Amino acid sequence: MNYPNTIRNLINCFKKLPGIGEKTAERLALATMKLDDEIIELFYDSLKDIKIKIKRCSICNNFTEDNLCDICKDEKRDRSTICIVEEPKNIILFEKIGKYNGLYHVLNGLISPLEGINPEDINIDSLFKRIDEVNIKEIIIAVKPSVEGETTALYISKMLEGTNVVVSKIAHGIPIGADIDYIDTITLEMALEDRKKIS
Amino acid sequence: MNYPNTIRNLINCFKKLPGIGEKTAERLALATMKLDDEIIELFYDSLKDIKIKIKRCSICNNFTEDNLCDICKDEKRDRSTICIVEEPKNIILFEKIGKYNGLYHVLNGLISPLEGINPEDINIDSLFKRIDEVNIKEIIIAVKPSVEGETTALYISKMLEGTNVVVSKIAHGIPIGADIDYIDTITLEMALEDRKKIS
Repeated sequence: MNYPNTIRNLINCFKKLPGIGEKTAERLALATMKLDDEIIELFYDSLKDIKIKIKRCSICNNFTEDNLCDICKDEKRDRSTICIVEEPKNIILFEKIGKYNGLYHVLNGLISPLEGINPEDINIDSLFKRIDEVNIKEIIIAVKPSVEGETTALYISKMLEGTNVVVSKIAHGIPIGADIDYIDTITLEMALEDRKKIS
Repeated sequence: MNYPNTIRNLINCFKKLPGIGEKTAERLALATMKLDDEIIELFYDSLKDIKIKIKRCSICNNFTEDNLCDICKDEKRDRSTICIVEEPKNIILFEKIGKYNGLYHVLNGLISPLEGINPEDINIDSLFKRIDEVNIKEIIIAVKPSVEGETTALYISKMLEGTNVVVSKIAHGIPIGADIDYIDTITLEMALEDRKKIS
């Protein structure tokens, strides 16, 4: 004896999502039965549309339902600066700060020779094309400080050597509120290296 | 700037599920985009069907897609014993053990005078009707050992006083593998009270 088919199918679908095990999938599937009808309707409509409607912006590779994303469409943004991120969700974070007014470029991955991910496997050629076509003054690299992130940053800066484009990287260091005792040594080393004169 | 509508809607739907916050909802919504097409299809089909196809068994109130659930339909089950559970999902657990061959009765809640949940608010009248109509020999109460559970158990046993029906309750005590040091006092008290002669 098990759940009826429809419930079982729903449990199996939830289980395909990352971090969702058998027990959580069961809990979520049973909880959907208690959702309001309009939420359920929105839920399955969005699921149905998610792979059809969501495309990538033809300039920056961000999520969009049109040809261009809202940021690339926005005439008020500074078109001379590009912030390089790994995934579209990173853009949302930067936009939440509300301090950056330039454009973005989503790499959709990072260079990882160990895993066989080369520059041609990520969305990096289109970045150099953008730089050639438009007058770009600064490239801000905002990828995570891992081996892959550093490799990707190095590759981009090497490729832009000899051009007028300023290449910068967001600062790595001790996060605000963190206790120095609990910071790993690499972060501490980076924080020391990137120290800032205050007087 | 935020995610396109479809993604935002999907995030909001995931957020309606218990235990899913903003960050997890975002992670799950983005992960759905990476699911295979057939999984997505099964996902929205099941969501669409969940409130329409899933009904309650007209005998025991278990989930079913028919009039009767698989257990009530099964001719090989012992029809003289009923195990009382709070929710349909409890049945799945008992069935996993594979040791119980009787029928079930799903209360869909527990009596809770504090929260204003009276016997008539849960599916308990139909239990007494079942007992009247069919020859039931034993009722096993398998609800959680909370105030509400105990109240419900007491109510059922009181109502069946003077009949030939044996009313029993599953044992409460120290779970296998648990360290006695970490067991709460009420459980320990129950375990002591329900002690079993071993020689």
